[in-house]
Amino acid sequence: MDRRQKQLQTLIPRLGLPTDTEVNWELLDIALTHPTMGTPNYEQLEFIGDSVVRLAASEFLWEVYPQSSVGDFSAVRKILVSDRVLAQLSDSYGFDRYLVLSPSAAGDASGKISRLADAFEATLGALYLSRGNLSLIRPWLDPHFQRLATEILKDPARLNYKDALQEITQARHKSLPEYRVQEITDRADPEERFVAEVWVQGQSWGRGTGQSKKAAQQAAAKVAFFELY
Amino acid sequence: MDRRQKQLQTLIPRLGLPTDTEVNWELLDIALTHPTMGTPNYEQLEFIGDSVVRLAASEFLWEVYPQSSVGDFSAVRKILVSDRVLAQLSDSYGFDRYLVLSPSAAGDASGKISRLADAFEATLGALYLSRGNLSLIRPWLDPHFQRLATEILKDPARLNYKDALQEITQARHKSLPEYRVQEITDRADPEERFVAEVWVQGQSWGRGTGQSKKAAQQAAAKVAFFELY
Repeated sequence: MDRRQKQLQTLIPRLGLPTDTEVNWELLDIALTHPTMGTPNYEQLEFIGDSVVRLAASEFLWEVYPQSSVGDFSAVRKILVSDRVLAQLSDSYGFDRYLVLSPSAAGDASGKISRLADAFEATLGALYLSRGNLSLIRPWLDPHFQRLATEILKDPARLNYKDALQEITQARHKSLPEYRVQEITDRADPEERFVAEVWVQGQSWGRGTGQSKKAAQQAAAKVAFFELY
Repeated sequence: MDRRQKQLQTLIPRLGLPTDTEVNWELLDIALTHPTMGTPNYEQLEFIGDSVVRLAASEFLWEVYPQSSVGDFSAVRKILVSDRVLAQLSDSYGFDRYLVLSPSAAGDASGKISRLADAFEATLGALYLSRGNLSLIRPWLDPHFQRLATEILKDPARLNYKDALQEITQARHKSLPEYRVQEITDRADPEERFVAEVWVQGQSWGRGTGQSKKAAQQAAAKVAFFELY
């Protein structure tokens, strides 16, 4: 364990924590051990870490955006804790260099994103359990949450949900979203003149209204985007 | 707030915590204020509490059942944090007596279960934020988790999943589950002689195998039960 511990110790300053931070090295070792290496491996710690990152994101949003609605909280949290975001963070910190895995798993490029996200969550589990609180997590995770939340919460019109949704459905289902738009001419509210519904793989995923056909489609895409992200 | 604080203080020993426990009374007051009373109300704290109870359940399972699979962890956690369980706990502690709500909401009997669960989660959020850890939560919540987990994890044969599933589908859809069973006579493993699939509302929810038709149905019902619980 000594050599491994030395290696794991180098991860701590990378995360922006003081070099002499004491963590439960045994747990951190397990958190960075892939299931192909037998047991113990990161699976149980990932189960804990999944709740830890959710709590960290919730607390962050509550502290930083006290005026936001719970609907916004949920939409943003969903993205902050998504595999895609966690894998990106994991990759940016070079977690793959710390992960012990079998040669066959290492060669599985298609499993890389879920592996990176899993090991990241498991590490959060180990860091949380080392202290029984979020003190080894929020100091370095908060700036990432801040950057992402700012991006997500900024003027929705600046984020093109139709494009973003299309990206998701193409990657996952190799299909494009389908929009069904209705014009309702007797509406008092011009914002409700057009009603769009977006369908993906034979299922309706979102509905939106707007002054133009395009605005209604964007509104529908936004709903579906947060559902499918 | 003084009178309200005095009332809220009586909740603490009810939970089994020492009478002189200091909590953030302002947050606890908000946690027990229904949205019909305007803002602030329990919605944001419920958002935090939802993550808190999930983490408490995860940590509990990891500590008490270190040998369990992550699949079992997930199945049990799903039940421990379900609205049904949280509402039962909330009710058993008399949370409704502490909840401030408008007369119209108080008269809404159908909303009682979600109201009880919401206020319970929000209270967990307030207790967590009072300390930044689970020290005001696990001491009194763990025995409930223990009782429920023991019940859920005990010999599955003793829990009749077909009955339990039927109860759910009748309550929610006023319909009964439908089982489609196939006998496969050339199987080497007698445990796979019968294959059952359970359908609810035109959708297949679970598949199971067994030595008898009944065992296969129970196995399928178990899968569907954990999906639909």
